[in-house]
Formats: sequence, C-alpha cells, structure tokens
Amino acid sequence: MQEFTKFPTKTGRRSLSRSISQSSTDSYSSAASYTDSSDDEVSPREKQQTNSKGSSNFCVKNIKQAEFGRREIEIAEQDMSALISLRKRAQGEKPLAGAKIVGCTHITAQTAVLIETLCALGAQCRWSACNIYSTQNEVAAALAEAGVAVFAWKGESEDDFWWCIDRCVNMDGWQANMILDDGGDLTHWVYKKYPNVFKKIRGIVEESVTGVHRLYQLSKAGKLCVPAMNVNDSVTKQKFDNLYCCRESILDGLKRTTDVMFGGKQVVVCGYGEVGKGCCAALKALGAIVYITEIDPICALQACMDGFRVVKLNEVIRQVDVVITCTGNKNVVTREHLDRMKNSCIVCNMGHSNTEIDVTSLRTPELTWERVRSQVDHVIWPDGKRVVLLAEGRLLNLSCSTVPTFVLSITATTQALALIELYNAPDGRYKQDVYLLPKKMDTNGPYYQGPVHMNHTTLKEIFFKITFIFFLFLSS
Amino acid sequence: MQEFTKFPTKTGRRSLSRSISQSSTDSYSSAASYTDSSDDEVSPREKQQTNSKGSSNFCVKNIKQAEFGRREIEIAEQDMSALISLRKRAQGEKPLAGAKIVGCTHITAQTAVLIETLCALGAQCRWSACNIYSTQNEVAAALAEAGVAVFAWKGESEDDFWWCIDRCVNMDGWQANMILDDGGDLTHWVYKKYPNVFKKIRGIVEESVTGVHRLYQLSKAGKLCVPAMNVNDSVTKQKFDNLYCCRESILDGLKRTTDVMFGGKQVVVCGYGEVGKGCCAALKALGAIVYITEIDPICALQACMDGFRVVKLNEVIRQVDVVITCTGNKNVVTREHLDRMKNSCIVCNMGHSNTEIDVTSLRTPELTWERVRSQVDHVIWPDGKRVVLLAEGRLLNLSCSTVPTFVLSITATTQALALIELYNAPDGRYKQDVYLLPKKMDTNGPYYQGPVHMNHTTLKEIFFKITFIFFLFLSS
Amino acid sequence: MQEFTKFPTKTGRRSLSRSISQSSTDSYSSAASYTDSSDDEVSPREKQQTNSKGSSNFCVKNIKQAEFGRREIEIAEQDMSALISLRKRAQGEKPLAGAKIVGCTHITAQTAVLIETLCALGAQCRWSACNIYSTQNEVAAALAEAGVAVFAWKGESEDDFWWCIDRCVNMDGWQANMILDDGGDLTHWVYKKYPNVFKKIRGIVEESVTGVHRLYQLSKAGKLCVPAMNVNDSVTKQKFDNLYCCRESILDGLKRTTDVMFGGKQVVVCGYGEVGKGCCAALKALGAIVYITEIDPICALQACMDGFRVVKLNEVIRQVDVVITCTGNKNVVTREHLDRMKNSCIVCNMGHSNTEIDVTSLRTPELTWERVRSQVDHVIWPDGKRVVLLAEGRLLNLSCSTVPTFVLSITATTQALALIELYNAPDGRYKQDVYLLPKKMDTNGPYYQGPVHMNHTTLKEIFFKITFIFFLFLSS
Amino acid sequence: MQEFTKFPTKTGRRSLSRSISQSSTDSYSSAASYTDSSDDEVSPREKQQTNSKGSSNFCVKNIKQAEFGRREIEIAEQDMSALISLRKRAQGEKPLAGAKIVGCTHITAQTAVLIETLCALGAQCRWSACNIYSTQNEVAAALAEAGVAVFAWKGESEDDFWWCIDRCVNMDGWQANMILDDGGDLTHWVYKKYPNVFKKIRGIVEESVTGVHRLYQLSKAGKLCVPAMNVNDSVTKQKFDNLYCCRESILDGLKRTTDVMFGGKQVVVCGYGEVGKGCCAALKALGAIVYITEIDPICALQACMDGFRVVKLNEVIRQVDVVITCTGNKNVVTREHLDRMKNSCIVCNMGHSNTEIDVTSLRTPELTWERVRSQVDHVIWPDGKRVVLLAEGRLLNLSCSTVPTFVLSITATTQALALIELYNAPDGRYKQDVYLLPKKMDTNGPYYQGPVHMNHTTLKEIFFKITFIFFLFLSS
Repeated sequence: MQEFTKFPTKTGRRSLSRSISQSSTDSYSSAASYTDSSDDEVSPREKQQTNSKGSSNFCVKNIKQAEFGRREIEIAEQDMSALISLRKRAQGEKPLAGAKIVGCTHITAQTAVLIETLCALGAQCRWSACNIYSTQNEVAAALAEAGVAVFAWKGESEDDFWWCIDRCVNMDGWQANMILDDGGDLTHWVYKKYPNVFKKIRGIVEESVTGVHRLYQLSKAGKLCVPAMNVNDSVTKQKFDNLYCCRESILDGLKRTTDVMFGGKQVVVCGYGEVGKGCCAALKALGAIVYITEIDPICALQACMDGFRVVKLNEVIRQVDVVITCTGNKNVVTREHLDRMKNSCIVCNMGHSNTEIDVTSLRTPELTWERVRSQVDHVIWPDGKRVVLLAEGRLLNLSCSTVPTFVLSITATTQALALIELYNAPDGRYKQDVYLLPKKMDTNGPYYQGPVHMNHTTLKEIFFKITFIFFLFLSS
Repeated sequence: MQEFTKFPTKTGRRSLSRSISQSSTDSYSSAASYTDSSDDEVSPREKQQTNSKGSSNFCVKNIKQAEFGRREIEIAEQDMSALISLRKRAQGEKPLAGAKIVGCTHITAQTAVLIETLCALGAQCRWSACNIYSTQNEVAAALAEAGVAVFAWKGESEDDFWWCIDRCVNMDGWQANMILDDGGDLTHWVYKKYPNVFKKIRGIVEESVTGVHRLYQLSKAGKLCVPAMNVNDSVTKQKFDNLYCCRESILDGLKRTTDVMFGGKQVVVCGYGEVGKGCCAALKALGAIVYITEIDPICALQACMDGFRVVKLNEVIRQVDVVITCTGNKNVVTREHLDRMKNSCIVCNMGHSNTEIDVTSLRTPELTWERVRSQVDHVIWPDGKRVVLLAEGRLLNLSCSTVPTFVLSITATTQALALIELYNAPDGRYKQDVYLLPKKMDTNGPYYQGPVHMNHTTLKEIFFKITFIFFLFLSS
Repeated sequence: MQEFTKFPTKTGRRSLSRSISQSSTDSYSSAASYTDSSDDEVSPREKQQTNSKGSSNFCVKNIKQAEFGRREIEIAEQDMSALISLRKRAQGEKPLAGAKIVGCTHITAQTAVLIETLCALGAQCRWSACNIYSTQNEVAAALAEAGVAVFAWKGESEDDFWWCIDRCVNMDGWQANMILDDGGDLTHWVYKKYPNVFKKIRGIVEESVTGVHRLYQLSKAGKLCVPAMNVNDSVTKQKFDNLYCCRESILDGLKRTTDVMFGGKQVVVCGYGEVGKGCCAALKALGAIVYITEIDPICALQACMDGFRVVKLNEVIRQVDVVITCTGNKNVVTREHLDRMKNSCIVCNMGHSNTEIDVTSLRTPELTWERVRSQVDHVIWPDGKRVVLLAEGRLLNLSCSTVPTFVLSITATTQALALIELYNAPDGRYKQDVYLLPKKMDTNGPYYQGPVHMNHTTLKEIFFKITFIFFLFLSS
Repeated sequence: MQEFTKFPTKTGRRSLSRSISQSSTDSYSSAASYTDSSDDEVSPREKQQTNSKGSSNFCVKNIKQAEFGRREIEIAEQDMSALISLRKRAQGEKPLAGAKIVGCTHITAQTAVLIETLCALGAQCRWSACNIYSTQNEVAAALAEAGVAVFAWKGESEDDFWWCIDRCVNMDGWQANMILDDGGDLTHWVYKKYPNVFKKIRGIVEESVTGVHRLYQLSKAGKLCVPAMNVNDSVTKQKFDNLYCCRESILDGLKRTTDVMFGGKQVVVCGYGEVGKGCCAALKALGAIVYITEIDPICALQACMDGFRVVKLNEVIRQVDVVITCTGNKNVVTREHLDRMKNSCIVCNMGHSNTEIDVTSLRTPELTWERVRSQVDHVIWPDGKRVVLLAEGRLLNLSCSTVPTFVLSITATTQALALIELYNAPDGRYKQDVYLLPKKMDTNGPYYQGPVHMNHTTLKEIFFKITFIFFLFLSS
C-alpha cells in the first residue's frame, strides 16, 4: 500500500483530476442543461429512490429523469455501432458471463452504452463517477432505472466522491473480479481499503494518463498484484482520440467560445505531435495561416513538409491572432510571451493538463481579469490590451467542445475488448504487469517507461476483427 | 404607392423575413442568454426609462443592461478593424456631417459598431429592428445609454414592430435624409405613410435579397424616387458572406446541434454555388466524403474538377449520413427522399429561406416528431427510423451558429461606404435607380433583373481604398 | 487595311507570337521526339508527296509518318469526349454542311481532333500552323492522309509561314466562308491580300489574347466587316484553362525542369488571379509554404481568407526558394529582386508573355549564363550565387509542361460551337462586331474594351447542353 | 558462407535487383540523355583511361565527360544542404579519418555528393554500382577525375557487374574496414570470396529491403560476424522517402507518361500505408476522386477519417480512370480486373517490385501490345478497348519520375551518420547484430524480424542534431 503514499497526496493527486473536473463543469453538453436547473438541493445520499422494478440499489440525483436519459443513450447508440455490433456478435457466447466489474469513469450517454454492452455480454456492473462534475444526471437515472448499480451525480462533494466509490466496491455478497478505471482513484481506493479484493481481481483496465502512470509506478516498485491493461496508449486511442478528434474539437472549442473567424487568422501552434497535427490540419483547411514551434527535429521536419513555417515562439508572438499549446510540456507560453501578444490575441491549451500556459503569472495586481462569457476571460493590461484566455488554460477540448460520440465509441470498444481479454485469458498469459494493446500505428507517443508486452496471437486478432466491424459499419 | 401593394401582402411578405426571424430566436449568441431570462414582462412601450444623461429618446427592454451591452460592443469592435479604421480616417472630415439616418436592421453588437461609426462620422441616427426576435437587449440598452435613438427589443409583437419603425421616422423637428434598410420594411413604411419624406432623402442603402428585389420592382415600375444602393449583391457580401462564412458556419452549425464527427461521414451537398463551395471545402477538409448534386453544368464541372462526385440525389440518398441543401430552389429534398434516408441521417438547409426541404410533408400522422434539443427534431418513422432535422429546415447558419464578426464587419463597412457615397455625391451622379458596388469578382450570382450601373471613378476608388485598409489590418 | 498597319509592325507583332513559338520549340510533347530526328533536310515545299488516295493537296514534312500521327490522334480522342459526342450528336444534321473553313492554329493531335470533328459535321477545311515550331509533323501527315488540306511543318521559315497561310486561302474554285484563327495572322493576311474574301465570310472565331485584341481594335475603328467570336474570354477557357490547368502545369513544369521537391519549399507567387489561385492551390497542397503578392485588394483579401500570407515581394525575396509570376504586368521581378535572391532560387513565369521577369536586366557582363538543361539556365553572380531561370522567363506552362488534352478539349469544343453558331445564325443576329460566349462565370478577367453582346437564347442554350455532355462523360 | 547459399540463387536474387535495374534504364534523368547517345561501343574494361592527375585507378565509360558530371554534382549539392553542412561541421574532426570504405550503390549525382562527403570526412573510398543500368556515366567520370576509385558504367554485363565489385574489394595494399551496401551484393561477394576481410570490417551499412532481409537471416543463423546498421527502416527513410516522396512522384510519373489531367479523374489506390497515403493526398489535392482498397482495418479506418471511400476493387473497377497499386502484395490487380476496366484506364504500380499487377496474364495472344511512348504500353482487347500500362507494372516512381534530391539527401545523410557511428563506436557498443536508427516515428512498417537494439545516447543524439541542421537549412 505504501506505493500509493509516494504518489501525490490525496489533495495534490485529486487536483490533477480536478483540473479536468472543473473544466467539465461548464461543459456544453446540451443534454445537461435541460435538467440541471432543478433546484432540488437535497443530497442524493439522503433521498430514498426506487426504480420502476422496485430496486434501490443505486444513488442518483433524480430517478425520474430516466426517460430523458434513455433518449440521450439511444442517440449515442446510433453513433456507436462498434459497441452495438460487439453486443450482437458476442451475445451468444456471453464472454463476460460471471464477470463482476466495478467501474469508475465519467458517466455520460456514451459510457452508458459501454456499461450496458458489458451487461449484455454477461457482466454485472457497479459504477461510480471519476469526476465530481461530469455526470449527466439523467443518464445516471436511466442506468439506475435499467438496473445498473450506479452511484453518481453532478456536483458531488469530495466526501460524496469517495462514498460513491466505496458503495461500488463494498457490498455484501458481491465481490468484484474486474476493475475498469479512469484516473486511478478506484484502484487506489481498493488498494488502500480492500486489498483483499485483489485476490479475486483478474485484471485492471485503465484509460487515463494519470492512472496509467500510477500503474507503471506500482509495477516498477513490484507492487502491482494483478495484470493491468493500458488503454490510454493504445493505437486507437492515440491515433483517433488525438489526431482526428482534435482536428474537430479545436474548431469547435474556438468557435463556441469566441465566434472567431478562422479564415485569414494567424495562428501559432506549439507542438506538432498528433494533437498538433490535428489542430494544424483543421486550421489550415479553414484558411488560417499557421506557424509551428517544435523542438523535436523529426516533428519539425514533418511540419515543414506539411507546409507550415516552423518558428520560435518569440518570432511570431507579436503578430499572431491565436496561440494554441499542445506540447505536453510546462510553461510553454510564459508571462513574457503574454506581455508581447497583440490586443485581443486568443490563448488556449489543447495539450496536457493545465500547465502549458503559465496562467499563474497572470494573477498579478496590475492585470485585470474580466469573465466575459463562460470559459472566456479577458485579461487586461494597464494600457488596455486584452488577451483572451480560454478555459483558464485548461484543456480546451474538454472544457469548451464536445467529444464526438464516434471517437468515444472507439475508446469504449477498446476498453470492452481489454476486459474480455483479461477476463478470459488462461492463467499465465498475463503476469502482474502493465500490458498494452498493439501499437503498430502509434507514432509520437512517449516511450513507455514501464514493462510493455504485447500479445499478438489473441488480443490483436480479436481487436482487429472488431475494428473491422466498425469500419464496415462506417462504410456501409 | 401602388407598387408596394403588388408585392406580397404584408403577412406574406413579412413571413419571408419571419422565416429568418424565427430562426434567430433560438440563436446561440452567447450574450443573449445572460440577460434574457429576466422575467420582467412589462412591455417596454409602457416603461419610463431614462439614460444616465437624462434622455428618454429611446425604447428598449432595460436600460440597466447597458454596461453589459457595452462590453459586447467592445468585444465586437476588436474584430471590426475596418470600421474602426474608417472612423479614424474620416473623423476629421466628418463625411456624414448633417446626415440624418433612419435605420432598420438586426440590432446586435456588430450593428452597434456600425451605428456608432456613422455617428462618429457626423450622422444622427434613429434605429429600429428589422426582426422581432433578433435584438440583443443589452446592446440596444448600450446604444440608448450612448445617446442613439433606438427603438427595439427582443420579442416585439407585430404591432410593436411597426410602432418602433414609426417612432424612428416620425419625429417632430427631425427629418431623415438617408435610409439604411434590411428587408425593405422601413422603406415600405415611409413610402406608405410618409411619402413626402422622400423629398429630402438622398438615398437608400439596402442589404437584403428581399429588400433589393422590392427596390428593383419599384425601379422597373418607375416609382423609385431616390437613388438606391444594392449592398446585397456587392462583391464583398456575395464572396465573403457566402463562400468564406458558410465554410465556417456549416461546421459550427452541425457541431453545436448534433456533435457529429465529420471524419468519415458521407455527406451530400445539393448545389455547388458559393454557399455549396464553402460547405464542401470545409467538410472535405475535415475528412467527410462529399457528394454534390447540381443542375448547372458549369458548376457541376467545377465540382468535378474540385474532386467531388457529382450524383443524382437518388443515387446516394440511402447511404449518406448528412444531407445539406444550398440550391436556392424549392423542395429539393422531398418526402420521398426523406422516406429513403437511413436511420439517424441529419438533414439541414444552408440555402434559401425555409423552402428547400419539404418539411411540410413530414407533418403527417404516421410520423412522430420529437424535439431532442433546441433546433433539433427527431422525426420518427413507424419502423423506428429517425431522421434528424435541424432548425425545422430553416437556415442552419442563422439558427444554429454565429456569424463571425469579421464577416459582418465587411458588410457593415460596405454599408457605411454606400451611405457616404450617396450622401456626398454631387447632384446628377446618381439617378432614381438601383446601383451596385463594383462586382468585378462576383461569380455565380443570378443575372440582375433591374437596371444596374456602376460608377467606377468614385465609388470603386473609395471602396478599394477602404478594402485595402481591412486587408492591412488583417495582415498586420 | 490601314487598321492593321497601326498594329505593331509585322516583326514586332509576330514577335509576340514568337515569344510563344520559341517556347513551344522545346516542348516536351513526347510524340515529337520520335520522328523529328529525321535529318531529311529537303524543304517540304520542294517535295512531291501524295497520300494513299492519290491527293497532293497538302504540304507536310513526311506523309509516311501518317500512321504514327493517327495513333497520337486516337490517343487524344480518348480524352476529348466532348468533341466526339458533338460529332455523334450533330452528325445527322451536319450543321456545318457547306462550311468552308480556313484555319490557322497549332497543329497537334488535339487540334486534329477538332479539325476532323468539323469535317464530320460537314465542313471542308484548309489548315495552316499559327506557330513555326509547334507543328507535330506526324499529326500533320495523318491529317493529310485523311484528306485534309494541311500546310504545316515544324521549323518553317517566316517565308514558309506566310506561304502556308496563302496556300490555305488562295485556291482556285474554293472560297472560304469561315475563319478559325489563333493569333490573328490568318485574319491579317486575308485583310491585307484578299479583302474580297470577306464578302463571303460569315464569321471569324479567334482564340488568342493577341488576336482578340486586334479584332477589338478593328471593331473600334469601324473596320471589322464580319461578326467575330471571342473564344479567348469565354467562361470555359478562362476558368478551366487558367485555374484548373495551371493548378497542374505549375507542378509539371517545375518538376520536369528542376526535379525540385515541393514539400517544405518557400514559394512566392506574384498575383492571385485565376492563374495564381491555381498555382497556389497546387503548391500548398504539396506542402510548400506559399506567400502572395497582390495589388488588387479583393484578390488580396481572398488570398488571406484562403490562408496565404500576403506580403510585399521585398519582404520575402531573400528567403524564398521559388518565385512565380502571374500578374499580367511587366517587370514584376526586377534586377534588384534578382540580386537579392538566395543561391539556387528558381524563377519562372506563369503569367503573360515574357515580360513579367526582367530577363533583359540579366544580360550584363558581370553575370554568367549557363544552360544546364533544356529550358533551364543558371545565371551566375560574381560571388558564385546561382539563380535558376526557367524558359528564359517565357510561359512555363507552354514551354516546360504539356497541356492536358481534357482542357484543350473544352476550348476546342467551344471553338466548334462558335463556328456552328456563326455559320447558322440567321441574318442580322450578329453584326460586324466582336461577340462573346456567355461569361456568367468569369471572375477576374479584365473588363472588355470593345463592344460586347451576348446572345443568350441561342448560343447559351447550345453551349450549356454540350457542356452538360462533357460533364456526363466525365462522371460516367 | 553457407548462409548465403540458402538465399535465392544468384540469378533469382539478382532478378530482384534487376526488376529495379530495368526500370531505371529508361529513367527520365535528364542528365543521362545528354551523353548516352555516344555510340562508343568499346567496353570500358578494355579502355586505358587516365584522369588529369595521371591516375588510372578507376574504370568508367568516358573520363572526358567529367566536366559535365561535375556540373550535375554541383546542382545536386545545392539541394543536399544536410550533407554539405555535415562536411563543414565534421571537417575539423575528420571523424572518418582512417576509414576505408568499400561501397556499392546507384551511382548518380546524389550518391556522388555522399561519396565526396565521406572523403571530406577523412575516408578513402572504392565504389561500384549496385545496378547495371542506373549509373550516370558522366557522374562516374567526375568522381574518377576527382580521385575516387570508381568502377561503374551504364549497361554493364553481369560479368562486368561482379568484376567491378571485385576491383573495389580486391586491391593490394588496401583493405576495407567499412562496407556501404545497397542490395547486399557487395556484402555477399565479400562473404563468399574474401571472408577474411571481415576481420577488419568495423561494420556494414545497408540501405535496401533486400539487403536488410539478407542481414537479418545471417544474424538469425548466427553467421553475422560484424555489426550492421539497417538504414532502410530508419524513420527518415520510411517517413520521408515513402510518404513525402511518393506524394510528389505519383503526380510526376503519371504526368510525364500520360499527360493525364488529374482534376475530376476517378482513381482507385490499392493500399493505404505510407506510400498510399502520399499518393492519395496528392491526387485528392489536385481534384481527383480517390477510392481506397485496404485490408488492414486500422489503415482502412484512417482512410475513412481522411475522407476517402474505402471499397472493394471490384466495386469501382469499371468506373475508374486510374488504378494505382501500393500494397506490397502480389497480384492485387488481376487479369479479371484488367478485363473489366474501361477504355483507356491507366494502370500503374507504386508499391513493391513488379508483382502487384499481374502483367504476365496480359501476355496472351488475344491481346495486342502497342508501345506508344517510352514506359507506356497500350494493351488492346479484341473489342478495341485499351488499357494504358505504365512501366510494365514496375515501380512508377523509379521508372517514370525522378526522386527529389532533397529526399535522397536525407537518406544519404543517414548513411553517413551510420558509418560515422559504427566506425567510431567503442568496442562492445555494437555486437554482431543488426541495428536500427531510432524509429520513434515509424508507423506502418512491418515488425522487425531480427533482433533490434537502439542506442539512444550516442546515435540518436548525433542524428537529431544533424536532422536539426537540415531543418535549419530548410527554414532559413
């Protein structure tokens, strides 16, 4: 257990997930806006709610919102054909029969499709939210109505957060044998509170960078006691979430917050990895003049061959209309840069966490902050110059745009496949280590710091077959 | 006056502008959402309001919203450098000194920048709204606070609408000598009620298709008694509003309403004029597979050379994920087409008014309509198939996306230039006819049905100089 | 006749066509290279040749090359479906029955398809070359073998040139009633030598800028005695020859001469008209970083919206790898610019004639010229710097790349349609003036200096029908 | 030695390299055409030639061509700034001082720049050609004149081929300590004839697929007795040679052979690996309508997201204008497909060797072959249908287009770096194994079958520094 104590302290660690949480708060998810205005301020923990089948094995904001949530799930299903086809294909075999999955993820319509797929494949599920703000209450209600043991609502307190996780893990007569985690909080809780549960656990599937990082550290320290599957670094997540998804969300995020016209704008994109490539392709296509900063010479050469001028940030900082960071590094945009930007320059972050823009440096007395819209601050210099800061430097795509269901579908399918593989693998195939889905296609990812093994003969085969199914759906 | 009676009856005619009005109602204009929730239901006409200088020469929803409106105007100013530069350039000369302009347009932050520019150039302005839903109340308040005689609020009744116009025109001791109109309602009202006013009017500047159409009919019938400037068909409006603006708003409109991922989607675009070219360029760039239907062989050949497959709608209707109309024709998408679409196909209109999709044919008992989000209806067939109809077939870009300020800036500058030219032209330069700004660049517009004259030596010169100013701002 | 004497003197005038001629000399037309090595130096005028049907009514290099020429014509036919379909469609009606056409054009496989189409529609043709270098001898042979009275070979002397034209016009018992000209030399000759022929001529169809310019001047002077059709400024020629054709030929021309890699290269394109738009689109697509210089503010704004940085040539001249002119102006690239270019900068012209680059300024003693390949000169400065000058500043696309047959097909079809229209028009439809095909789509062309009338009801109808045929072929 | 006997027999093996050789024969390399017409048929082996310094330590076609060859080398140098900068940077240190390199590669202007760079860094070189057709005689002459011991000419017999290699290796008083090979023939010869030489050899650098394959087999069998560096699978080669280079050469190859217009053409590309991605990007950009066939679901999904319709070849074979193979597989285009193509369909191969199109199946009596241009055959069906076959199914980019010097520069720099690293590595850093340059970016390459180790601390560092130099040159 000691391993986890070396990690950031609870507050520190959670703060990482908070930086995501907060941004999710003001998400544009249209659905949320329908029902959240309910001013029912009684805590869900104090309510007695029962679904139409008489079950009370859940805790959500308002079970009556189930019908509306069901509609959102149905809309999501229509763009998640891979999962639906997986349901159909595997329904006879029930490859998850006997699986008892405890999960902790964002609770949205898309996750609901994943959870219900797992159920359709034979699993029993208990679920909590990995973020205190991101739960779509009506979706949680729909899941509860459908019989899933879900414990989550929008606006949990920190105490609520752990209480929900605990309710999922700690239930008489039910013991989890699989973990699906997003951020590592659930895994952490089990390690800390119920270490014996790991005796039954056949594997952990983890999606986030943070969670994967924790797993690798556990593994390094020899404390990882079950096999774990790193979904975050899978080809499909890296390639599709990053490249293709960012290609769309950069436009969406900028448009929803600032209504800026892209044509003719001068934009500097810091970093030409997959995220940068996606951002640049979209902006170039819509008529922006795009500059790149890049320290990796190969990526710089690619940028060059793709027709972008590679510059130092200082060279162009005075002339650009938009600055976008996607390097994965810290303090890429410094106060000095911010001082030199021209009036009404837009600054935002598509990269890692909230560290790329040195936002802290803007919290000084001589600068005035003005919140002009949700997620949009004008930072005003003494001479009247305004810099338009989006999402306070947090991830633009999480804060200010929606993620296309289709992309989430790919990641969700990968999670389902990883669960199936780990659950059905013969003893000995996976050791107490962190495994990876085939990465044939991954290009710019960081080198893996932990032990990485691939299992081509089984996982890859299943994976490719299923991927092909998506593809058939797409092209049909 | 008889000429106007040949026009569509008031209801019919207004309905054209209404079809726009209604769509504007649910506009995503983020600003509007801040203050409209005020449930103050007293009619502005019955309120006594005074601005901070003691003037009551206006009628708006709530003068107290002025400060918030001012901020919106300031934001808009930052992307309207052409107007601002015009202000600076012409401030010494005051080219509109003595001009008394009565205006009737959408009242938004961008229009406010135009109005205040006209004032800065020496004009006195009285203003009403051309649409009963589109007024940004806080912007109207800011104008009123700044001393502009503005009569407009969001949610006017039809009676309010004409009352506001009348208040602008009919004022003791003040007689308009210029008209700036958008839709022709103001012009109509003056013709009908105050024909004598035309003795002083030096010219009309009209922006909309509808209004221009009316002017040409008046001119044809020999009833046009002052020169008029057709801004709608100016190069800048046609080329930039249509091509470049639609290139951005098609993405924005689809994303905000459906969160659809563009990559890999099959899309059919009906019509390859400027609007179609803009839509197709954007969708292709983001990885959609785009088909075109087109009846004009030249446009069809262009589509072909631009790499699109030109098809008949029937050939692809079963397989596409999105259908977009931009032909300018009626019933391009029929009930038969709608019957054959696949489940969750998205249907929307970027073309003319609300006639391109035969929405009426969907109002039959066997089909269920379900409003799933604002501007998004699911039309459900008996077998469960859903078609996703956006904005009930009205203009997607007006209903579901914002127009970039920069584009509005170009049109607004053109309006200002047209006013300056008409007001300052020596007697005889313009006759009682409809004039056009130089159209050197206009490509696919319909042939002009009315008399068209260009005045190269004066107008063009000014125009080009100013345009060059935009350009300098853009590239600086 | 006097009108023509006001024109550039024969030498001066021809020099314009020469500037084209010379570039055509070294054309890459692969076909030419097969047979031109024949060192048969007897002048065709002195040879006695007879085709297989016993006719000697022609004068070509070597009638024995007919079979090879036929194959080239057949290859061309396969990409000229519009003409072939016109043949089929009009074959029954023989709309040119009775037409006696005297023509003077480049004699290539593509022109041969046009000539044979005219014959198939009922015309009799006599043909000469408009350029002393551009004739494909084997194609001329194939035409002669097929019975066309053709007088042309590659490498004519100036005396030969006029002798060939004279042989076409001046024949006992045959009098032309239609003229198809490219450059105006044939028209000039008839005006000067056989003015009476114009009594029978029903019309002139002229393709080139130079020839059209002459016609407008004749018309202005009231000396044009028959209707003329300006094919040069037709929509299809402007739009397709310029935009789409240059999009391909800029790449082809640069590659064939220099093998330069486009990816990552910095290119400045002077002028953003149709030609410039085509060049920029292609270069941007292949990963070049493209800058634009432009003096027209509308075009500059378009360049900006299309994502190009608009600059002054001086700003970037030191850093660019390639300079391309397409302005239509003179001395756009001066010696001063050339002095400042970096080592191995490539300079070429896609615009008008050979005037855009001030090549003359490079013919000074301190600079060394080195011909490194056909059409490629290194101009070497005293310090060793080399500038790579292509085609000595003449048109790159004429000199160093081939024109796609498909594009030529569009122009050739337009010529055929113009002939049909003029030949069949009832008396009075066309006066002694220069007419234009419908220009609905023409955008950036210069304003027409002469009288321009359109005939929508007839010409347009035919034209559009036929265009639609191309399109059907294209998309079938 | 036995290992090599398990390899394809000499003929079989060479045939692989031959399939490339033959295509190189008809290369458009403009330079070659200048001097090859010399009908001097005396074998170089029988000539006595001496360079201007009196040395005869070489064997080339004609030493007198040296000056012309020098000019070609100088032209190449101008686009190979990475090598030139390496020369400058390492000149002081002479990192190859003492190196005796025996090389066997194509002998072109670009290779000459590499060889002369190696010499400038301190190495002594002896060189032969890896292909009997690809030598540029004048470049070989220039190398000989400059004192390089080069043994190569265009049109060697097989006996000449091995004689030249032998002359490089087998010289009294000179023993190689490094090998630079392209295809493995040189390595094979040393293994077979002079195994003792390996005692001194510090390493082998191999560029080609074939050669690398042989090395891995040797390594597997435990017979590799020196370290080897696999340059073929280096990031730079895979990424730049394949993606960016093919993006340009597909256009160049099609244009030079067929003058086809790309706009509006329907093209099917078989395979969406790096080569396919490059081809598709270029064709799409120039207005072609592109379909993809792909069996790998990830690549198929990428194609989909990039906006291409993924189809089965049979679905589109009747309608397409161009078929391009780049799968790496055999018989992708079968006789059945060829039978169904439409008239004048163009068929070519950008993928592996000459196996993708089943050309053999076209060698049947009922089909007529007609060679219409160099590298272009019409295959004619009994009903008159023609299929246009390019380069008889061999690699289009090798046969019908030139490779940009810039790309060759990247590969050549990599070779130089590999030589420097192997030559200077302390004992023990490299074992008797096949090593790879860092592959961080390689995406779609096959999994490496042999043992692969990376050496980050040394090689990568140098490599990245140098790459950065290219980049600086590029962007300066």
